[in-house]
Amino acid sequence: MSLLPKTVNPDLQKERDNASIKAEEFAVWWHGGKDRLKIKRDLELHILDDLDEDIYRFPNLSHEEIYNAAIKDFIKLAKKIQELKVERNYDGTDIWPSSVLWGAMPAGNPLAVHCGMVIECIRIQGTDEQFEKFGKACQSFSMTSAYAQTELGHGTFIRGLETRADFDHHTDEFVLNTPTISSYKWWPGGMGQSANHCIVPANLYIDNVCKGLAMFVVPIRDMETHAPLPGVDVGDIGKRMGFAGVNNGYLGLKNVRIPRTNMLMRHSQVHRDGTFVQSPVSVLTYFTMVYIRCLIVRNVATQLSMAATIATRYSAVRRQSPINPNEPEVQIIDHLTQQKKLFPEMANSIAYKLAFTKLYQLYETTSQDIKHGEFSRLPEMHSLSCILKVLCTSTTMAGVDILRLACGGHGYLSSSNIGNIYLDVGASCTYEGENTVLLLQVGRFLMKSYRSALAGKKLAPTVAYLQNAVKEKSLCHWTGSWEDLLKILQIATAHKTHITYENLMARLKAGQTEAEAANNTGIELTQAAELHGICFVAATFLEEVTGPHSKPRSPALNKVLGNLLELFMISTVLKYMHEVLRVHKLSEAEIRSLQTRLEDSLKAVRPDAVVICDGFDHHDRNLFSTLGSYDGNVYERIFEEAKRCPLNKQPVPEVIHTHLKPFMKSNL
Amino acid sequence: MSLLPKTVNPDLQKERDNASIKAEEFAVWWHGGKDRLKIKRDLELHILDDLDEDIYRFPNLSHEEIYNAAIKDFIKLAKKIQELKVERNYDGTDIWPSSVLWGAMPAGNPLAVHCGMVIECIRIQGTDEQFEKFGKACQSFSMTSAYAQTELGHGTFIRGLETRADFDHHTDEFVLNTPTISSYKWWPGGMGQSANHCIVPANLYIDNVCKGLAMFVVPIRDMETHAPLPGVDVGDIGKRMGFAGVNNGYLGLKNVRIPRTNMLMRHSQVHRDGTFVQSPVSVLTYFTMVYIRCLIVRNVATQLSMAATIATRYSAVRRQSPINPNEPEVQIIDHLTQQKKLFPEMANSIAYKLAFTKLYQLYETTSQDIKHGEFSRLPEMHSLSCILKVLCTSTTMAGVDILRLACGGHGYLSSSNIGNIYLDVGASCTYEGENTVLLLQVGRFLMKSYRSALAGKKLAPTVAYLQNAVKEKSLCHWTGSWEDLLKILQIATAHKTHITYENLMARLKAGQTEAEAANNTGIELTQAAELHGICFVAATFLEEVTGPHSKPRSPALNKVLGNLLELFMISTVLKYMHEVLRVHKLSEAEIRSLQTRLEDSLKAVRPDAVVICDGFDHHDRNLFSTLGSYDGNVYERIFEEAKRCPLNKQPVPEVIHTHLKPFMKSNL
Repeated sequence: MSLLPKTVNPDLQKERDNASIKAEEFAVWWHGGKDRLKIKRDLELHILDDLDEDIYRFPNLSHEEIYNAAIKDFIKLAKKIQELKVERNYDGTDIWPSSVLWGAMPAGNPLAVHCGMVIECIRIQGTDEQFEKFGKACQSFSMTSAYAQTELGHGTFIRGLETRADFDHHTDEFVLNTPTISSYKWWPGGMGQSANHCIVPANLYIDNVCKGLAMFVVPIRDMETHAPLPGVDVGDIGKRMGFAGVNNGYLGLKNVRIPRTNMLMRHSQVHRDGTFVQSPVSVLTYFTMVYIRCLIVRNVATQLSMAATIATRYSAVRRQSPINPNEPEVQIIDHLTQQKKLFPEMANSIAYKLAFTKLYQLYETTSQDIKHGEFSRLPEMHSLSCILKVLCTSTTMAGVDILRLACGGHGYLSSSNIGNIYLDVGASCTYEGENTVLLLQVGRFLMKSYRSALAGKKLAPTVAYLQNAVKEKSLCHWTGSWEDLLKILQIATAHKTHITYENLMARLKAGQTEAEAANNTGIELTQAAELHGICFVAATFLEEVTGPHSKPRSPALNKVLGNLLELFMISTVLKYMHEVLRVHKLSEAEIRSLQTRLEDSLKAVRPDAVVICDGFDHHDRNLFSTLGSYDGNVYERIFEEAKRCPLNKQPVPEVIHTHLKPFMKSNL
Repeated sequence: MSLLPKTVNPDLQKERDNASIKAEEFAVWWHGGKDRLKIKRDLELHILDDLDEDIYRFPNLSHEEIYNAAIKDFIKLAKKIQELKVERNYDGTDIWPSSVLWGAMPAGNPLAVHCGMVIECIRIQGTDEQFEKFGKACQSFSMTSAYAQTELGHGTFIRGLETRADFDHHTDEFVLNTPTISSYKWWPGGMGQSANHCIVPANLYIDNVCKGLAMFVVPIRDMETHAPLPGVDVGDIGKRMGFAGVNNGYLGLKNVRIPRTNMLMRHSQVHRDGTFVQSPVSVLTYFTMVYIRCLIVRNVATQLSMAATIATRYSAVRRQSPINPNEPEVQIIDHLTQQKKLFPEMANSIAYKLAFTKLYQLYETTSQDIKHGEFSRLPEMHSLSCILKVLCTSTTMAGVDILRLACGGHGYLSSSNIGNIYLDVGASCTYEGENTVLLLQVGRFLMKSYRSALAGKKLAPTVAYLQNAVKEKSLCHWTGSWEDLLKILQIATAHKTHITYENLMARLKAGQTEAEAANNTGIELTQAAELHGICFVAATFLEEVTGPHSKPRSPALNKVLGNLLELFMISTVLKYMHEVLRVHKLSEAEIRSLQTRLEDSLKAVRPDAVVICDGFDHHDRNLFSTLGSYDGNVYERIFEEAKRCPLNKQPVPEVIHTHLKPFMKSNL
């Protein structure tokens, strides 16, 4: 018998009744229009509403049991998606909000890389015939695959990969080897037990001469029995912090032979006689990474909004510590220090979602440019996708942690799901470009841009402010407006870029190589990059709120967005105050007024906090949280979840009889 | 057949050969002398060296299997400890370094609270007869117990606890009830299935009049069958983020009757006729919390040193990305940005360990004072234990995360153990006083101290600097010495305290109640508290390095400690630069010289980084990490651990045959 009330917790209802806007209006804005919101909800209805409960118990399961559940779950999901595609004529990835898929596979998807990346990789890197053969087999799942790039001893530095493919003139084959333990392929999602093929990037050798990296389609398991093929050593790498069901694998290859035609040959080729034709365009591979980083920004910003929803709803339901003694305990959302934990993360998730939208527009423009052979904006696009990936993942990781702590002890329950979100996001700081490595790349891009600025050249649009800001070393007149707040951040960024450049030059002058000087200037390079990214995010948020907007908005919604922007701008300037004060000597009164504005903006967001989160429109299955459900029946859900714990199946577990009781009676 | 070499990784050996000090000298200093180090190693030898392997596989196990393993593991450990106590005549808790116990029970200990807290609680809160009855039974384990304070709906605010104990005049019993779902006891470690008794803090009612909180010894499971007793609803609360084997439980009580003599009556009593005698000393309960917070500081600082050891050794072994192109990939510890991740956390763990030592001296002094009826230093002691608990746990949580990310993808493997350390530390920010709640308490203590300073009264020694710093609003002459760096932090703290006080007063003046004003000044109160704590930590570190020291040190060790202090002081001042610049307008050249000093101090620590970590002297079993073992055979260990993954037991898992293959053949 369920203890769950059918009603909404009255404290939460009160929040909804008293807000200045309706959640629906926010939801329409957040999801980019009524149509898109409708499609999202329709998908959720069909995919999430009648899924099995099994996978939702995954925190209690063993590593092996989670994998079993994830495979079964994936098959159900794939069938549903196939039905929907046929029935509704849906197509494309954009229409599938990733949050729907998370909700359907909370422990992760062992075939996510297969579906999301390998098929696309074969399409882009393979010839049309290759796509016909391998790509189609992937689409129908007769072939399941992984993308096996990273090695046990090699990650970031691709040229260092040890796996080699030697061309055998006699048999017209490649012979693949992972000659050392450190060259074992390590980490690829789904490679452990789920894939029967891998895309293997390896160094191509012809007559023992290295021709650089190429990609090979390598069968690893028998198409009938699924047993590993001769020369193949494959398995699961063992438990990770998160992504429990993803089946990350290892792969050793010993003289594994594949036909020459299994090398993906759209851009570079090996002919029958061993002639190697170099790819004319390296830029395309590079551009796929840009695309993936865009998606990471969107996904991770969404995950932050999920955590914010869970913590905010819980904070409206949870009552703790009276503010005035002898009065009842208040909703914890009324403690100012609690608001300081919740609302800035809400604003951050909005800021990064908006930055994603802007980034994605730029991506689409650049894609068009590339089709027309125009590559000039590519460095800018690349560095922007890098810095936003870094900032969004690191901000979210820190933010989810703050939000977890904001839920006190109950945030630590697996059933709160904030921990699970944290573990997912925690991986995103490392994959698809380790954050520090990316920051250094962006730092180097800033150095180049700055050098161009000094030479009087025109800068790319998103770094143009460096030029203006260099001229205007400080703000002439501080009014504290949003525009001023942005400008002061830009001036601080220009200043940081300037001194980083000076230090780099000084090191070169002192005789260091370019690489040594860059390493020794590394800390400042990463700081400049971070500031640069922040300026983009702040500018985008400011533009969304104050610029012209395509769809009409009620004054009430405008006000709410303004409150969030105010909170974001003030928080950001306070966070970087140590940089700001180096370029503009704000008076003590001005600094104190920023603190007051921070406090006031928290209070301004307070009445709408719950409906803003409602407006993120996360399905309960997606939140998968005892603390964050729409109805706010928190304690009842925690209680029911505890009752389901496998340890409670019997009044006294077996180990008590076999071990604990005899020990207790032994009179130690 | 093990792949593990019997030799030390040559990169790690080189680090040890080329360091400026021997690890042993650092270890003797760190552990407080040769004798203490010897005892620690002796314990490790006996406790850790021949433990079973089972529990080390816990990340692969289900929630239930982990519990079973933890129970078996605990029994073995308890027997060993008992043997050692008899054999070596060891006694006291201080001699048992907690790290030895972590190493022995990596998934957590379901009877940790029983051993570490309940017995002590009965000794302090119970009469001598009660200790004879209950305490002794606990010591021999015929009685196993949990401490059941927190409720599902009530944590921080103790007076809000709903559990009640009504005195029944007729039967001379107490009748215990948890009348609502929110009053269920929730979270106590070991309460799920392991304990047959609980210490239950509940509101005491006599003739329906509340007399305040008292503690009751409540049997919850049958002493013979271990089945829950009538009226008792008890079980495990379900999976948590960490502490997998701790068996946190829930407890509902419905008209559970216990003899009147089961109330712990050393300080307050209920007589047979229902007369209630109030405790004359509330201070003692309070003082136990102080003690526990001291231990948390020590434990968590130790955990940070564990994570630093793992990440630093890995960074010496891992090679990635050449610094100069066409040269081999370098040890990642040679990247400046990597040093920036590793070494400050090393310095932090040392800083907090030293702060603990100082705090513990103060604790012992205060304990003596209390025995002589002298309570004047108690508020200071209390607030110091609070702020160090907060700073150490939050610094460590952030630091462990940085260190995990510093290990790239492999840091995300469960077998790296950094994730497990993170999850443990992540709980410490909440338990034994939620960090924000504690910060607010310390903030209020600062307000009181500041008021006293304004009134010309003498301040407690650890806040005395507020008085001096108030007078000296800015540094007259900046030399950049360590003493200057500390002084500037103190002046910034005094300034923050001053403006917080002003804002609080302004709100009171505007008609807010004291509680409302405190809530509205909450953010600044927490900031002032944080700064205050940092000043204590910095002053302690400075004193250790530059002050007189009891035991002789080699000049080389002094130099190493000086390097670490320099790094700590510079990092700290840079972190709080936004506050520093408000009280002292450092010139741009002065700020840039701090940045240079940061970079130089990283380089100065570099050659000794590995031996410093060796000097923390963590047993391999304690680190429990494929990345951090003493011999540095990282890849071989990761490889062996992967091979042990249960999913790899058979070449093709069952679920492939039953589910995945049929799906792959279905031609979706």
